Amino acid sequence: MLEKLKKEVLEANLLLPKYGLVTFTWGNVSGIDREKGLVVIKPSGVEYSEMKASDMVVVDLDGKIVEGNLNPSSDTATHLVLYKAFPNIKGIVHTHSPWAVSFAQAGLEVPASGTTQGDYFYGDIPVTRQMTVEEIKGQYEKETGNVIAETFRSKNINPDYMPGVLVNDHGPFTWGTDPKNAVHNSVVLEEVAKMTYHSLQLNPENIRMNKSLLDKHFFRKHGENAYYGQNISEKGEINYV
Amino acid sequence: MLEKLKKEVLEANLLLPKYGLVTFTWGNVSGIDREKGLVVIKPSGVEYSEMKASDMVVVDLDGKIVEGNLNPSSDTATHLVLYKAFPNIKGIVHTHSPWAVSFAQAGLEVPASGTTQGDYFYGDIPVTRQMTVEEIKGQYEKETGNVIAETFRSKNINPDYMPGVLVNDHGPFTWGTDPKNAVHNSVVLEEVAKMTYHSLQLNPENIRMNKSLLDKHFFRKHGENAYYGQNISEKGEINYV
Amino acid sequence: MLEKLKKEVLEANLLLPKYGLVTFTWGNVSGIDREKGLVVIKPSGVEYSEMKASDMVVVDLDGKIVEGNLNPSSDTATHLVLYKAFPNIKGIVHTHSPWAVSFAQAGLEVPASGTTQGDYFYGDIPVTRQMTVEEIKGQYEKETGNVIAETFRSKNINPDYMPGVLVNDHGPFTWGTDPKNAVHNSVVLEEVAKMTYHSLQLNPENIRMNKSLLDKHFFRKHGENAYYGQNISEKGEINYV
Amino acid sequence: MLEKLKKEVLEANLLLPKYGLVTFTWGNVSGIDREKGLVVIKPSGVEYSEMKASDMVVVDLDGKIVEGNLNPSSDTATHLVLYKAFPNIKGIVHTHSPWAVSFAQAGLEVPASGTTQGDYFYGDIPVTRQMTVEEIKGQYEKETGNVIAETFRSKNINPDYMPGVLVNDHGPFTWGTDPKNAVHNSVVLEEVAKMTYHSLQLNPENIRMNKSLLDKHFFRKHGENAYYGQNISEKGEINYV
Repeated sequence: MLEKLKKEVLEANLLLPKYGLVTFTWGNVSGIDREKGLVVIKPSGVEYSEMKASDMVVVDLDGKIVEGNLNPSSDTATHLVLYKAFPNIKGIVHTHSPWAVSFAQAGLEVPASGTTQGDYFYGDIPVTRQMTVEEIKGQYEKETGNVIAETFRSKNINPDYMPGVLVNDHGPFTWGTDPKNAVHNSVVLEEVAKMTYHSLQLNPENIRMNKSLLDKHFFRKHGENAYYGQNISEKGEINYV
Repeated sequence: MLEKLKKEVLEANLLLPKYGLVTFTWGNVSGIDREKGLVVIKPSGVEYSEMKASDMVVVDLDGKIVEGNLNPSSDTATHLVLYKAFPNIKGIVHTHSPWAVSFAQAGLEVPASGTTQGDYFYGDIPVTRQMTVEEIKGQYEKETGNVIAETFRSKNINPDYMPGVLVNDHGPFTWGTDPKNAVHNSVVLEEVAKMTYHSLQLNPENIRMNKSLLDKHFFRKHGENAYYGQNISEKGEINYV
Repeated sequence: MLEKLKKEVLEANLLLPKYGLVTFTWGNVSGIDREKGLVVIKPSGVEYSEMKASDMVVVDLDGKIVEGNLNPSSDTATHLVLYKAFPNIKGIVHTHSPWAVSFAQAGLEVPASGTTQGDYFYGDIPVTRQMTVEEIKGQYEKETGNVIAETFRSKNINPDYMPGVLVNDHGPFTWGTDPKNAVHNSVVLEEVAKMTYHSLQLNPENIRMNKSLLDKHFFRKHGENAYYGQNISEKGEINYV
Repeated sequence: MLEKLKKEVLEANLLLPKYGLVTFTWGNVSGIDREKGLVVIKPSGVEYSEMKASDMVVVDLDGKIVEGNLNPSSDTATHLVLYKAFPNIKGIVHTHSPWAVSFAQAGLEVPASGTTQGDYFYGDIPVTRQMTVEEIKGQYEKETGNVIAETFRSKNINPDYMPGVLVNDHGPFTWGTDPKNAVHNSVVLEEVAKMTYHSLQLNPENIRMNKSLLDKHFFRKHGENAYYGQNISEKGEINYV
């Protein structure tokens, strides 16, 4: 069942230690089959070095285990809320990567300060409000998803143009067009958090980049006028200008 | 004698360089057999790459060498005090890991600023008071243990819920349910010290996390209501919410 | 065509991940054959682990593709402006290396604070002014080159003595006597940005080094009186004093 | 000639990249045969990966090349001054290791802030005054040695108890009882510079450790009452208290 997706989810999970995003088991990746409405996710608390594709757990969008012998990640309920709230995303990553967590613990968004961020995230990477005592004591993991969705809704942020968020006092969630792409965005988030941390220490004033520069870089790589990479119809003319 | 524990202690010592916690020989791990009242500890000043299980030294709780041809770690007396003061712990680690030392040298505790810390340490990771001239000139290593025990006693901290401490102007000691678990907690301490250092530079105000969030994360993984990982009885229902 | 230069450009590109200067495909190296007026450059968006010498793209100084099946780097137009503006340089590197980007995002030059910088860069490493909306919306990559050239012209900086620049809110470009040397300068820029960042946090006042010390170190390694390394005629006398 | 010392000097030089202390060729190690009055030192500008024992250069204390086909390190004159000024040292290291350089560029000593430093350096690690224009324009490398010797003389520092220094706006020199020991001290200097940098950012006030604690740690490992490691006569009693 969903063998291809399970393999993709396993491989994406294994990218987390490869890219230095996780300590121990502090991270998880899921992927969704939108047609079947089924989510494949890492089991809870299993070490990356021991994980097999057959350990991946299949759940439906209500969280019911459809296949698998292990408990799914304790963050599964968060993933499910996001898949329901953001209809175009097909992979989700959660980590405790240190630079992103540093901003999350400070309760600060990562301001769009340069083209590295602009190439992937269309603006400041948002941070959620702190959760209420009721949310924490209630269905905590589900409410974590809800507070992310609320952040995007209330600030009118397009999740397809902003593939990540910092959960206040916790850490980052990122997403993408598939599990591997979601990991890619997690790497970028960590890198821009590191660079912008240092920029803020050097010069806390007016750190944000020009809106035109942000537009240029984001839409150079995304949307119908993109011209970065090799996926561009070419007609003999050089098209990088 | 205690062959299994010697092997565990050796392997836990070898995790220190693997996780980047030590430079040269700046660290040591011990383990205890509570029934026999015997402690197994790394020899002093021997390089990790050369250590064998048979090099491990066995001492009793008064510090008398029971087996072993090498001198035990110069920090042995500190370990012994902690085993006596904290009756449930079964492994102890001391390192000079750089982020933890940075807080220790600054004389500051590591405030509980996010869920990464909350998953393992129930609150701020304490720092001891500076030692007196008498304590330093006297039985220094033993007094180091005493000032740790005093810190937990005077602040009414449960060492089973707070598996580590910073010795002022020195560095971290951590402990756990066995030698490997104590190393695990040493890795976590280093990681949260790093992250919270950066959070404090970004936003020194109100860095501490909400008490409800701390409770949620700590008791999600510890105590009888824990639901993280695979050690949960499962009855067909999803149990992560 | 230009097989030797293609190999040099490929090898120089592969040095970028080796030296930790790039994440994913965030960097590119080019080289020029000054006699033929042809530039060899990395293709756009291709992973380093998969690149072959035959993937390198040959363009003329007007940007017309002379040979190659792939799109050249999206930054090609910037490289071309620099080759035209700085007639002695024969290799160019662009990366998003994190310490250099931290200064670029802060809009700050890297002040000449010690001999490490002085050995390679004759003074402060400049940062460009922010680009105008017109420049960004127009021929952006070409204008990026223009703003670099303008910076050197208006500040009267010799590009042969200052082999690098920070593009504001973007990142570093470096150059050199061949592609490998340009990468070498990129490594140095990243290293001095890291060190000087920390020096500035320790002591922001009077960070710049003495002009005599800068002269001594730069001309110890460059120009006709250089005496560093092995390329010095030796006549029995020791010549390092 | 001096084959054993050449091998030691080569191996010590190769430790520099192993411990992450150097970028490119930015470092050099020498050793001395005190009886013969001859110094063995790394050649100038040769890559570590290509160096052989036979490349090491032998010079006398006046700097005259006694054996070797390559130019000695451009810093040779500095080493020679130190061997003459500090009669007990037998190995010297110079690097541009980044944390030590960060302090050197800031013109600041590394304050003795914790036991890690106290285990190896008996007090603050000093920084030299800035060199005069005359010193820089004259016999620069020799004057670099002179300003180090002056620092120790004027501050009445014992070089056997303080095996390192920061040359202002330049970087660290360390020394020791042999070339390998000098590298060891270079690693320690880099590590304590990193830790104390962070401690200073957390808490710039009263960073220095208690004098009693410094005495305890330094003399626990040095001098006739040392009891760290395995080189202690043992008489059945545990001797770590």
